[in-house]
Amino acid sequence: MERITATYYIETPFAPEKAAEVLAGEQSSGTFVAVPGETAELKARFAARVESVEHLETVTTPAIPGATSATGQYHRALVKVSWSIENFGYNLPLMISTLQGNLYEIRQFTGLKLMAIDIPDSFANHYRGPAFGIEGCRKLTGVYNRPLIGTIIKPSIGLTPEQTAGMVQTLAEAGIDFVKDDELMSSSANSPFEKRVDAIMEVINRHADKTGKKVMYAFNLSGEIDEMQRRYEKIVNSGGTCAMVSINSVGISATKKICDIGELAIHGHRNGWGMMTRHPLLGIDFPAYQKLWRLAGVDQMHVNGIDNKFWETDDSVVRSIEACLTPMFGGYSALPVVSSGQWGGQAPETYRRTKTVDLLYMAGGGIMAHPSGASAGVVALQQAWKAAVDGLSIEEAALQYPEFAQSVAKFGKKG
Amino acid sequence: MERITATYYIETPFAPEKAAEVLAGEQSSGTFVAVPGETAELKARFAARVESVEHLETVTTPAIPGATSATGQYHRALVKVSWSIENFGYNLPLMISTLQGNLYEIRQFTGLKLMAIDIPDSFANHYRGPAFGIEGCRKLTGVYNRPLIGTIIKPSIGLTPEQTAGMVQTLAEAGIDFVKDDELMSSSANSPFEKRVDAIMEVINRHADKTGKKVMYAFNLSGEIDEMQRRYEKIVNSGGTCAMVSINSVGISATKKICDIGELAIHGHRNGWGMMTRHPLLGIDFPAYQKLWRLAGVDQMHVNGIDNKFWETDDSVVRSIEACLTPMFGGYSALPVVSSGQWGGQAPETYRRTKTVDLLYMAGGGIMAHPSGASAGVVALQQAWKAAVDGLSIEEAALQYPEFAQSVAKFGKKG
Repeated sequence: MERITATYYIETPFAPEKAAEVLAGEQSSGTFVAVPGETAELKARFAARVESVEHLETVTTPAIPGATSATGQYHRALVKVSWSIENFGYNLPLMISTLQGNLYEIRQFTGLKLMAIDIPDSFANHYRGPAFGIEGCRKLTGVYNRPLIGTIIKPSIGLTPEQTAGMVQTLAEAGIDFVKDDELMSSSANSPFEKRVDAIMEVINRHADKTGKKVMYAFNLSGEIDEMQRRYEKIVNSGGTCAMVSINSVGISATKKICDIGELAIHGHRNGWGMMTRHPLLGIDFPAYQKLWRLAGVDQMHVNGIDNKFWETDDSVVRSIEACLTPMFGGYSALPVVSSGQWGGQAPETYRRTKTVDLLYMAGGGIMAHPSGASAGVVALQQAWKAAVDGLSIEEAALQYPEFAQSVAKFGKKG
Repeated sequence: MERITATYYIETPFAPEKAAEVLAGEQSSGTFVAVPGETAELKARFAARVESVEHLETVTTPAIPGATSATGQYHRALVKVSWSIENFGYNLPLMISTLQGNLYEIRQFTGLKLMAIDIPDSFANHYRGPAFGIEGCRKLTGVYNRPLIGTIIKPSIGLTPEQTAGMVQTLAEAGIDFVKDDELMSSSANSPFEKRVDAIMEVINRHADKTGKKVMYAFNLSGEIDEMQRRYEKIVNSGGTCAMVSINSVGISATKKICDIGELAIHGHRNGWGMMTRHPLLGIDFPAYQKLWRLAGVDQMHVNGIDNKFWETDDSVVRSIEACLTPMFGGYSALPVVSSGQWGGQAPETYRRTKTVDLLYMAGGGIMAHPSGASAGVVALQQAWKAAVDGLSIEEAALQYPEFAQSVAKFGKKG
């Protein structure tokens, strides 16, 4: 029978082997005393199995405060634990409860992070994965051989539908590929969802009729499920091609329901993610996390960006991009969404480290606040990526491209 | 216009006032450079507002590793931030993205935990809250003036429907009020959901016909949404009164959809919760968290238990029980589900500290592994609670009640 394997980075005052057995027991047939019915045969079929324990360093301060160790020592290790898929079948929430449930509460651990999940091939028969993925998003936007260039409507919240549509008009004329609502904006007092769709799609459809280029707009669908379904239909009927879901806030069952419809590319915003990963020894690591959402059918996954305005390191961002581009079952790729403080200056380093242009490269202020306006902002980003692929440094690119040079002057590191 | 206020426990190398302003900007109209359209009028209406900053201690080691401070100091504070409900209307996922979104990623914080949410009264017009709550669960089970006594089918996974139904029969005859699936068990290879419902409800309905007492069984519904809806109907049609949802794994949009049906009491299992709260300066605290789920309509909320087998302190458990029992909009109470390593010995302390019997008091091994069998296990728990309310100590209760005395001998602290 196929098994699913999870890799955990753990810290424990006990022998890691012993702590791993507690985890396996708690997450399959365990309770704190033996009970009738817990036969050897049943255990062999349904018990979680510790597959390996790789010892790492020992430290003298626990990763999560509050723990005590009789020896004053805390042992770190990588442990692999597996479950038969007979335990939960093809049910993502059950899989999450099994791999990420009560185990964070086990007192034998002073730190625990889910690092990787190996999912058996049979899942490909039960989950379509991203309905559009990288190829589909390129087809919907007509952009090939370079990143899709995108932006976020800012200010995040407060503009009227007409003001927002005006910005979209400017951006469309500037040659933008993709625009999105902020995650804080879905339907506000002065910008009801349906009115915003009407105003924006009128601009986008008119521009597409004239130029043949349809800007992809990710309307923030996040909400309660009936409303999401109604609004999804509204987008489809208005000629839109994309919807955004704040995946953590909405949850996986409702997100999958939306992805299953399959008529719009789904932009997966991971706000709230910091809580789940910011501590090095608590929560879940992105390579594991993104697999769950690709199974659910998310087409575009946020990965932060190089030299971002948040806490995350460049190494972590690079690993996240690579994770999204690594095939599952030979495909199921999601388009990595690079964002946060991006303005084009990060393009050379992003390309140098990932060697890919299969990205949705987002800049907010980096486009809208370009000294010569939004059009020049879009042009500067396209120049930055052309230069990056050509192997130019920021300085070399600035010499060659005037709009990019203006970005460097405004957004580049001073000093 | 009504405002929603969130209280955060923060740590920052910067002045707390400055960090709080960054949070407010990021979570409303902010971007990293000023953009056109960000008018003073718009800001006044939609900007988040820092309401107060209460300075706490300053430390020299950051709560979350990896941060650096120019001064080597990290300041802790409680900050209150408010938003107009015009920003997101009545939309729980949007509210979550606003109160718990990208703010965890802000590098100005070396620790951030959402401690409390003050929700305006108008939410009562848009959210029914728990359809059953404490009163409804008492009515469904016919239990008054004492905690509902419950147990979890163990081993968690591996029993056939017939074996499970056999246990339910034993437990029903023993006088149990409530039984639940483990969160790891929904539909496994040898216990398909529908067959388990048939087998268990036959036992429960037969017992109810004979005695007038209907055991509440929480079938683990957690899954993808269409399947949850089908299975919900199956439970209703079979005469069941309750379904369990792993709220974190399923997510709030789908959970609310299930709660909205309103024909079954919803047992909210919080597995995965440890990840969100175990670090003292990261994530969300239970009093804030439980409000979201009560708004969504969860009737029963897990709160762990006194002297539990997990990491959580008794103080934290007491606070969680009190949170569930504190009215929202004059009602909306959820029944606190006390569990984890409980056997009745914790009843006196639980009652002494909370002064309530409005609990679902769960024991797994504590009932099933009682030396004289499950019936004696249930009796022992009822005795423990009678003794607790009468103000008896464990020792006094053991002298008076023989079944409880056996529990003490088996499960009580040795030495």
